[in-house]
Amino acid sequence: MSSPTHTARNTTVQADTQAPPITATLARFVATHPSRGWSDAVEREAHRTLLNWLGCGIGAARHEATEAALAACQVLQPAAQAALLGRRERVDIGSAALINGIASHTFDFDDTHLKTIIHPAGPVASALLALAELTGASGRTLIDALVLGIDVSCRMGNVIYPQHYDRGWHITGSTGMLGAAAGCARLLGLDERATQMALGIAASQPVGLREQFGTMTKPLHPGAAARAGLMAALMAQHGYTASARALEAPRGFAQVLSTKFDWNEATDELGQRFEISFNTYKPFACGIVIHPAIDGCAQLREQGIRADQIERIELRVHPLVLELTGKKEPADGLSAKFSVYHGCAAGLIFGRAGEAEFADAVVHRADVVALRGKVVATVDTSVAEASADVTAVLTDGRRVQVFVEHATGSMQRPLSDAALDAKFHALVDPVLGAARADGLISHCRGLASAPDVRRLAALSQP
Amino acid sequence: MSSPTHTARNTTVQADTQAPPITATLARFVATHPSRGWSDAVEREAHRTLLNWLGCGIGAARHEATEAALAACQVLQPAAQAALLGRRERVDIGSAALINGIASHTFDFDDTHLKTIIHPAGPVASALLALAELTGASGRTLIDALVLGIDVSCRMGNVIYPQHYDRGWHITGSTGMLGAAAGCARLLGLDERATQMALGIAASQPVGLREQFGTMTKPLHPGAAARAGLMAALMAQHGYTASARALEAPRGFAQVLSTKFDWNEATDELGQRFEISFNTYKPFACGIVIHPAIDGCAQLREQGIRADQIERIELRVHPLVLELTGKKEPADGLSAKFSVYHGCAAGLIFGRAGEAEFADAVVHRADVVALRGKVVATVDTSVAEASADVTAVLTDGRRVQVFVEHATGSMQRPLSDAALDAKFHALVDPVLGAARADGLISHCRGLASAPDVRRLAALSQP
Repeated sequence: MSSPTHTARNTTVQADTQAPPITATLARFVATHPSRGWSDAVEREAHRTLLNWLGCGIGAARHEATEAALAACQVLQPAAQAALLGRRERVDIGSAALINGIASHTFDFDDTHLKTIIHPAGPVASALLALAELTGASGRTLIDALVLGIDVSCRMGNVIYPQHYDRGWHITGSTGMLGAAAGCARLLGLDERATQMALGIAASQPVGLREQFGTMTKPLHPGAAARAGLMAALMAQHGYTASARALEAPRGFAQVLSTKFDWNEATDELGQRFEISFNTYKPFACGIVIHPAIDGCAQLREQGIRADQIERIELRVHPLVLELTGKKEPADGLSAKFSVYHGCAAGLIFGRAGEAEFADAVVHRADVVALRGKVVATVDTSVAEASADVTAVLTDGRRVQVFVEHATGSMQRPLSDAALDAKFHALVDPVLGAARADGLISHCRGLASAPDVRRLAALSQP
Repeated sequence: MSSPTHTARNTTVQADTQAPPITATLARFVATHPSRGWSDAVEREAHRTLLNWLGCGIGAARHEATEAALAACQVLQPAAQAALLGRRERVDIGSAALINGIASHTFDFDDTHLKTIIHPAGPVASALLALAELTGASGRTLIDALVLGIDVSCRMGNVIYPQHYDRGWHITGSTGMLGAAAGCARLLGLDERATQMALGIAASQPVGLREQFGTMTKPLHPGAAARAGLMAALMAQHGYTASARALEAPRGFAQVLSTKFDWNEATDELGQRFEISFNTYKPFACGIVIHPAIDGCAQLREQGIRADQIERIELRVHPLVLELTGKKEPADGLSAKFSVYHGCAAGLIFGRAGEAEFADAVVHRADVVALRGKVVATVDTSVAEASADVTAVLTDGRRVQVFVEHATGSMQRPLSDAALDAKFHALVDPVLGAARADGLISHCRGLASAPDVRRLAALSQP
């Protein structure tokens, strides 16, 4: 009671004092929902989510953000408890959650829960793999915890989105600690009450300002959320307490961090509808708004059209595409991610636009530069944000048109398992080699029946 | 660029895009302000702040919140890098910052920056002592870092208070990570640019919902803020980046977490006015609103009045006092902290109201219960919040009146060094013994000339 004076003053703020017991309800759900209590489709999506996260994390193992975070953690002389994805070092489980969470979001290539634009795996899977490795949990236990943890963070995202995001919160890190806490509570086998405390402890630790976009602190958000959630679960396990209404109370999580709180989003169809069903995986290592245009150009390539046949590419797109990604001559790989022109060139020349196609060297390649210059983009308000109209005008005068209503990787055209495997290989082969990548894919696909998660962790290290 | 779509939508939110470069200005100040570049009064207050923090932390060394947090940290098998106040265990510097931060706020007895009701020492000193012990920093370096770190967190508090607090943030934890980052950056000798990055990394990690008041997660807030700030400085030292305008940008710290941002509060008289000058130390282990009444009763005791002479105590107080602390018959020590009746009884019987006078056993003592029942409190709107009018009506019919305009421990009547020492003894003697407490007081008072902070850390352990 630091200041009773100020406690009394807040009465003018419009508060919902009648909120339903969200914290208790979610805690009961996490603690008591049956193992694999969901459809085959949900089960499959959980494995795909894990594989995609693993690929993104391993792919960024040597990124300077990962290196800097590891160097800082090493000052603390961490115990060798858990694997770092794609690296030889082992660190304590808190540092592993942090660093793997950072790595998995560094390329902005991880999964997206499109209803809230949360990247759900980073906070949850990073905490879970570290903890599961220490406890020797089974694959089944990990998958269960992943599904339930992601359900909690995405449902709380649904409660407060979009006002929470619009206020300036990077929702991945500001809901991720709840998912990580829920998942870790489940993995530790905490009861309802302790799970409720874990959610409460985590609720006080949202991470992430959108101002950080474009810096290493953006991927810190899922990493720090992973660590915070993991520690919240461990603290609750050891008797640490928090408000039992931390999520819904007038001065609790949702009402402090948003002006919108649709409580029913937390509990409607709980245990029947799983938010991981709405997870998607980017085929292209850039903002989703460019994906339809890249997809269209890749489709032209599949039809046999080559770059040297191109007179120009006529692109009709939603106004937002040029507003956000209108860089005609990107200076490097990072700025190329904000160039629909580069995306089109990559799609037509390579048939893909993974992290490799946004390398500085590729951005400066003569054929890429030349093709970028032939893209003529025009705004068309009749084209939806999710769509793109691409016409190749060839040197022989032919016109070949492709209309992409929904890009590959969207909910309407989910990435196939084969495409997900290809994405995984593109990320992992340079770090661990193709053979190990294959081994990881097959091990990950059968993880639910693995007696121990440690094998997965070991396979993720060189 | 997870979602360019939503990046574009936020244009309706009223944002200050012209904010001055607060992050850069504070970073330059922290990195370049001369050692001991302040008055003797500021220097003295820094030592008092440290002593008060140390006493509160040692006093709560065996509290169940401290125990639970330590048990969770021990799962990570921490290296023995730094001292835990009042305990034999040594842990890594991150865990030490966390746990000492928790302990120091557990009794709600720590320091208060009254302009913002920030408890500034917890986040800053907890991070600094741990880091200084590892690096072998001098006492001078620690004091410099403490003054500058507290200046940063309290100035940022001034920028956003009170709207930030009214929204539901526990401002101690939601500004403390900035002070801890600034202090640790100074201690590490980071340059302007790296200090700016440290502030930026910390800005994404505010800790603390007011809903947690009354649970162990309240003291978690300064603890987690200490750890976050410490790690932010270490990450910046190793090249981790953040927004250079993380504090002031439209989607940065102040504008996301408050609706008020008085930028001039961050920079006016920077390097001349030090916020640690406005720090105060509670003489009584309860909310400040009861302090004038306790003080009045303690003054009656000093005048020789004993409990068995009391017919009744007539108390006239500001309405808020009874609204917040009107419990007539508290059930235990915790609820007694919300009882002005208990406060009066303790003041008159013991002449003090430290943590010991809020023990369950004291709350149930017959003489305490009897005297509590003789307190008649009435609301008087003419009495200021900071004041109390106390009249003892004695069994012989005499009336003895005391009017307390400002309680001891306020800015107007600061706690004397002797009173601070007495408070320290009351907290520390039960843990380390009176002789060690004396040793700590004298070592702490001369800390600025100590060649190495490790001696202070060693003295804080049994």
